Amino acid sequence: MTAVERLQRLFLQSVENGFGEPEWNRQPDSLYAPQRYILGMGGKRLRPVLSLMAAEALGAQAEVALPAAHAVERFHNFSLIHDDIMDEAPVRRGKPTVHTTWGTNTAILSGDALLVMAYESLRQLPDAVLPQALRVFNRTALEVCEGQQWDMDFETQDHIQEGQYLQMIRYKTSVLLGCALELGVWAAQGNAELAAALYSFGLELGTSFQMHDDILDAFGDPSEVGKQVGGDILSNKKTMLYLHLKAQRPDILATWQDARSTEKVEAIKNAMIEVGSLAYVESQRVAHFHKAMEALAAAEAKGCRTEDLAHLAQWIFERKA
Amino acid sequence: MTAVERLQRLFLQSVENGFGEPEWNRQPDSLYAPQRYILGMGGKRLRPVLSLMAAEALGAQAEVALPAAHAVERFHNFSLIHDDIMDEAPVRRGKPTVHTTWGTNTAILSGDALLVMAYESLRQLPDAVLPQALRVFNRTALEVCEGQQWDMDFETQDHIQEGQYLQMIRYKTSVLLGCALELGVWAAQGNAELAAALYSFGLELGTSFQMHDDILDAFGDPSEVGKQVGGDILSNKKTMLYLHLKAQRPDILATWQDARSTEKVEAIKNAMIEVGSLAYVESQRVAHFHKAMEALAAAEAKGCRTEDLAHLAQWIFERKA
Repeated sequence: MTAVERLQRLFLQSVENGFGEPEWNRQPDSLYAPQRYILGMGGKRLRPVLSLMAAEALGAQAEVALPAAHAVERFHNFSLIHDDIMDEAPVRRGKPTVHTTWGTNTAILSGDALLVMAYESLRQLPDAVLPQALRVFNRTALEVCEGQQWDMDFETQDHIQEGQYLQMIRYKTSVLLGCALELGVWAAQGNAELAAALYSFGLELGTSFQMHDDILDAFGDPSEVGKQVGGDILSNKKTMLYLHLKAQRPDILATWQDARSTEKVEAIKNAMIEVGSLAYVESQRVAHFHKAMEALAAAEAKGCRTEDLAHLAQWIFERKA
Repeated sequence: MTAVERLQRLFLQSVENGFGEPEWNRQPDSLYAPQRYILGMGGKRLRPVLSLMAAEALGAQAEVALPAAHAVERFHNFSLIHDDIMDEAPVRRGKPTVHTTWGTNTAILSGDALLVMAYESLRQLPDAVLPQALRVFNRTALEVCEGQQWDMDFETQDHIQEGQYLQMIRYKTSVLLGCALELGVWAAQGNAELAAALYSFGLELGTSFQMHDDILDAFGDPSEVGKQVGGDILSNKKTMLYLHLKAQRPDILATWQDARSTEKVEAIKNAMIEVGSLAYVESQRVAHFHKAMEALAAAEAKGCRTEDLAHLAQWIFERKA
């Protein structure tokens, strides 16, 4: 069993063992059933694992970081519920989304309550680290909202710079990975230097992760990814692949603008390969991964045990889905 | 100038003086403009005034409770933005609601960010009181969500008991007034006994306040209330007036069920007077006000200076709008 599997199990068992029990027993069930539904959907549990692993990297028991792990997982799922409403997404992980099942109003409200419950998890941390934990958590939460707003704003804007895209994915995705790690450091009574180093590790890993996601959405193996590829291309989503192709060959994107066919997906993918968009984004993905490993080396130099985190990063880097 | 006016002014000036400045200067503006819009709509600023007044009642400077005051005001406005989406309300305080102006997606997201910013205000409290402040704030925030969910659930339910209605308004409205006061106590380094006493005062005052709201919606003077009365009656809203009338004369409500006329409003109002619904709810409103004053007397016995709070309660009790 790898460290990731061990910590995934620890996290899931903590729920069975009663973590968050007082909240799950509340009424009305119409508010809490959607939360149990989305939290039970599965997935890699990447964010909570990062919190737990950070605590272990500092020589503490992973258990001390369980409040942090639940805080970031709850926050992540709150954002999924609300994002799915905004994106009008019918399906997540092969199941109907919360608003599809319970309606938009209950989805808004369940999400709100789950955000509050993220703070209730955070409150289980030792009093002494609560101020630092709240600081990074609040800043991150605002940034995630800002990232989602940028993402929506970009849909109606013609000229997006690569730098704007980078800031958007950093806010929407990367900062929460950094936050998960930093919270693990605070939970293990770590210091500000280690908090900063592991935060940077998460930030760069998250950016590499998101670029990987964009590549898999277009170029992944459907049998591995578990869904048809090309969704981003069909919806003209402004990924880094799209922005690179647009800068080189705006005519190709313009030609296929309104199409929703598999021909469009193939044509755009071929163009992305020929023009060098895929190679460019792949090089950026690798570059951010290397930055992540540099941040990890800095943490190691400060006394952090980084072996498991390095393995996890490698696992993330090599994933096919 | 009354104490209420003085503290309203202190609260509003704190924004001009830069409270929350780092947050208001963030981007994208499409996320923050809706927040400034709703926070600038005016109103009694009842919740922040309660926090500030509680601190003064303990002999502290009102300023120490500014973080608490902004936390409850931000939370309240977050809940208004999201409630207005769920209720499909086009207008608030005579102006278009946030989702009407900026669209539902931005309204969801601005509300989310405002909830986070409420926690960011809370974080400005002294570290030593943060755990207690977070405990009451989280519990209250969950209860407010639950109250809203009960309220939505009641719309499609035929048989609502008075006790269910009471719990709903307690959660949806009263607990936040209790929370505002309790946070003021913690901000002033008060003890758990005073926190509990002023929380109870707010809880009962809030319940009386909501019953008053329901009465004014049907029986208020339109020139004082500033809008046409009878909205609750037209939409068959299950207020305590409605539940009382339904228990006595279900036939009258059934007759007018689908009507949306001024005749309906007049007929139902007359029935509510004849059957004793108005007198009953009025007696309940008075009873909860007396419970509030008893809680205030208990706080006074523990050394709290209650004169301003008593005046504020009286002002709330006598309001015409």
